[in-house]
Amino acid sequence: MADTETAVPASLTRRLIAEAFGTYLLVFGVIGAALFFSTPDNGGALPVALAVGLAVLTGAYAVGSISGGHFNPAVTIGAAAAGRSRWADLLPYWIAQIVGGVLATLTFGLVGVMSGKDLDFGAVSNGFGEHSPLGFGMGSVIVAEIVATMLFVLIILAVTAAGSTTAGFAPLAIGLALTLVHLVMIPISNSSVNPARSIATAVLGGPDALAQLWVFLVAPLVGGLIAGVIYRPLFGGPKG
Amino acid sequence: MADTETAVPASLTRRLIAEAFGTYLLVFGVIGAALFFSTPDNGGALPVALAVGLAVLTGAYAVGSISGGHFNPAVTIGAAAAGRSRWADLLPYWIAQIVGGVLATLTFGLVGVMSGKDLDFGAVSNGFGEHSPLGFGMGSVIVAEIVATMLFVLIILAVTAAGSTTAGFAPLAIGLALTLVHLVMIPISNSSVNPARSIATAVLGGPDALAQLWVFLVAPLVGGLIAGVIYRPLFGGPKG
Amino acid sequence: MADTETAVPASLTRRLIAEAFGTYLLVFGVIGAALFFSTPDNGGALPVALAVGLAVLTGAYAVGSISGGHFNPAVTIGAAAAGRSRWADLLPYWIAQIVGGVLATLTFGLVGVMSGKDLDFGAVSNGFGEHSPLGFGMGSVIVAEIVATMLFVLIILAVTAAGSTTAGFAPLAIGLALTLVHLVMIPISNSSVNPARSIATAVLGGPDALAQLWVFLVAPLVGGLIAGVIYRPLFGGPKG
Amino acid sequence: MADTETAVPASLTRRLIAEAFGTYLLVFGVIGAALFFSTPDNGGALPVALAVGLAVLTGAYAVGSISGGHFNPAVTIGAAAAGRSRWADLLPYWIAQIVGGVLATLTFGLVGVMSGKDLDFGAVSNGFGEHSPLGFGMGSVIVAEIVATMLFVLIILAVTAAGSTTAGFAPLAIGLALTLVHLVMIPISNSSVNPARSIATAVLGGPDALAQLWVFLVAPLVGGLIAGVIYRPLFGGPKG
Repeated sequence: MADTETAVPASLTRRLIAEAFGTYLLVFGVIGAALFFSTPDNGGALPVALAVGLAVLTGAYAVGSISGGHFNPAVTIGAAAAGRSRWADLLPYWIAQIVGGVLATLTFGLVGVMSGKDLDFGAVSNGFGEHSPLGFGMGSVIVAEIVATMLFVLIILAVTAAGSTTAGFAPLAIGLALTLVHLVMIPISNSSVNPARSIATAVLGGPDALAQLWVFLVAPLVGGLIAGVIYRPLFGGPKG
Repeated sequence: MADTETAVPASLTRRLIAEAFGTYLLVFGVIGAALFFSTPDNGGALPVALAVGLAVLTGAYAVGSISGGHFNPAVTIGAAAAGRSRWADLLPYWIAQIVGGVLATLTFGLVGVMSGKDLDFGAVSNGFGEHSPLGFGMGSVIVAEIVATMLFVLIILAVTAAGSTTAGFAPLAIGLALTLVHLVMIPISNSSVNPARSIATAVLGGPDALAQLWVFLVAPLVGGLIAGVIYRPLFGGPKG
Repeated sequence: MADTETAVPASLTRRLIAEAFGTYLLVFGVIGAALFFSTPDNGGALPVALAVGLAVLTGAYAVGSISGGHFNPAVTIGAAAAGRSRWADLLPYWIAQIVGGVLATLTFGLVGVMSGKDLDFGAVSNGFGEHSPLGFGMGSVIVAEIVATMLFVLIILAVTAAGSTTAGFAPLAIGLALTLVHLVMIPISNSSVNPARSIATAVLGGPDALAQLWVFLVAPLVGGLIAGVIYRPLFGGPKG
Repeated sequence: MADTETAVPASLTRRLIAEAFGTYLLVFGVIGAALFFSTPDNGGALPVALAVGLAVLTGAYAVGSISGGHFNPAVTIGAAAAGRSRWADLLPYWIAQIVGGVLATLTFGLVGVMSGKDLDFGAVSNGFGEHSPLGFGMGSVIVAEIVATMLFVLIILAVTAAGSTTAGFAPLAIGLALTLVHLVMIPISNSSVNPARSIATAVLGGPDALAQLWVFLVAPLVGGLIAGVIYRPLFGGPKG
């Protein structure tokens, strides 16, 4: 969202490269940690929650001034609904985010194949029912994903509001908000709150991951959209 | 406390929405992590301590400029006693905080019911005696809660003092101070230092949680009040 | 060290209260986490390393502008040797730090006694030989404590140098530097690098902790003194 | 990279001392945590990932304004390729970084010898095949090290770009980016992304570590060089 402060916005191409880079980094972090690091001896899901937050934190400090640092279609739809970014940018942003995320998955796929390993992308995909770590059903997962994404996008809209006195801290707050969300949501659904992240793992996640993917497209987008719509009535006031 | 810097304070309604939102986020983080994430394989109580701190850190960056970012009746009473906020705001703030916290509990209750799960809100409620993780008695818990809340509120009052040279860092320091407090207090009492958080879990926590709740209303409020009274004599000096 | 920037320094009394408060907080964090939280299910020594760093981080944001935020006799001797604080302040600061630390220990002692618990302050005291977690001998522990304290104090002197462009980040860097030091030193000696912390636990730590205490007075002070002496020749340059 | 902002650059000697210090700190953190702290009871590899990031974070706040805070030959080659530092500085920086890293290893070697302990520097060296924690082969490790180093150096170049609005946050973002990288790479190769770190452990790591060392010199340098070359075309735009 930092682009609300930029006198001359970056070209669309530069912004899409930045979004693809940031989403690549996000998926590199969350999937890499989940595939390799996430064992009971290493703290289990805790490193995954840290990795995804640090990826967004560092990605937003790196390229947030170019593209706004969304890295997530649900953030982009929320930003559009709140009047922070243009609806015309929605589809290009979404495509760049999905491309970046899928490229990260393919990188790990390549690393696995070169060592003759069959990495289990299904286990790190988002899921409900028997694919929820704690066995939450579809309805529960939809509610939780909508609420968690809404909270996440409301925080983003608030910390990037024009005139915020703590502008430099926005990437810090956004990244750590994503870690917070994962500390609640990983046991429920492996934590999506981001359709690009869900697509990225489902691509190599097998038929079940693909069959359940629609939930992790719809619920986060609904949550982001709600956040974009209610932000101004709830928190807007004089500062926007 | 950031509102001490605002030329035109936000309307009471906006501030109460902000307090309800922030307390919702706080309870969402601490209870969500405690209910689902907090197993030995995932680092046990460590993610809970991180989640509650990150919730306050991100909530305060998001809406601290609107309401001051208390999210905690003990902070509000300390701020009033220190002359940072008006006594007339005390009761409305308390109500907004309790409403926000209870709504977060009800969200998880709904998510559980939809999956036919009977979530154990008693286990994540604050308690003493047999409900203290390490079996600390009522007296010990009261002393520890008073001291911990007093330290927490003193830090808040200090980092939000007018003229502080590191104003933008206040939400960071406050959130991480709450994590610090939980790294000591979870084994003693599940860590309250916040009556709204204690009410939120006790609502669905069963008779024992409700019967012990008064300790986690009184002790944190006493701790916050002491902090508000001693802040200026101890640390006030020329900067207030 | 933030007091190098203050036009009118705080009175000695205010500064000593701030040092006692900060050292109380430091010992509250490190000993509280070590006594209660530090089990394998909760991440073992990791929460201890986090707690001590967050205590200094938040304490320095809270009262660093008053006293410089030393909370550690080894930091005070290093600051004096580097010309950052007056030698006349050395002894009063040391006394305030020791008083603050011991009061924190006594708080936990009281909390334990009230529940009939015999808390093992010996196990959280610093030690060598059979009292080193990994069995390091006296010579190794002395070398490691000198090196670790020297690194810690060099970082403090560097991040608080006059004219530093990132002044507001100093408490963040200092707190996290202490976490870093503990991530190396806890298995060697339970990590002192701070005589006030070592005194605080030895007071109730039993005869062995008291017998070994001199190592954790001398080695950190030597490390801090070396840092103070070599800081300017190594890093001083034009910025001091 | 902070030196791009300094009117009068520090002398080469001062800068080399700063690089040796920072790399000493980095190896002190990562190897110390890996040798002593990294057991399943303490969170396993998680403290190692935190230690290395906090070492760079604090080292960069401490001496980044002197030398740019590289502490890593792959960063220096990337900075040179991106036009951020002079090619003439490359070799002296590399030597200072290697000297600093090896001195840290020797410090632990001395601490071990003094207690009659034979510390296993081979286990904390970077490796592939049977020396990869998860058994990844040479090709996989080369690809992963190139990608991870490239991502890390791109982040560094972006957050230190002239005119960045969040300049003071650069050391924070850089340190946490290194933690992120380690949360993915430790299970693959023990995580190098830094030839000086790999040399430092291989020196006492035994014949296998030395035989595999070339991979951890070449791959990170290639990754850093790629980042330096593609940074401006990808992200440069008007802000450089």
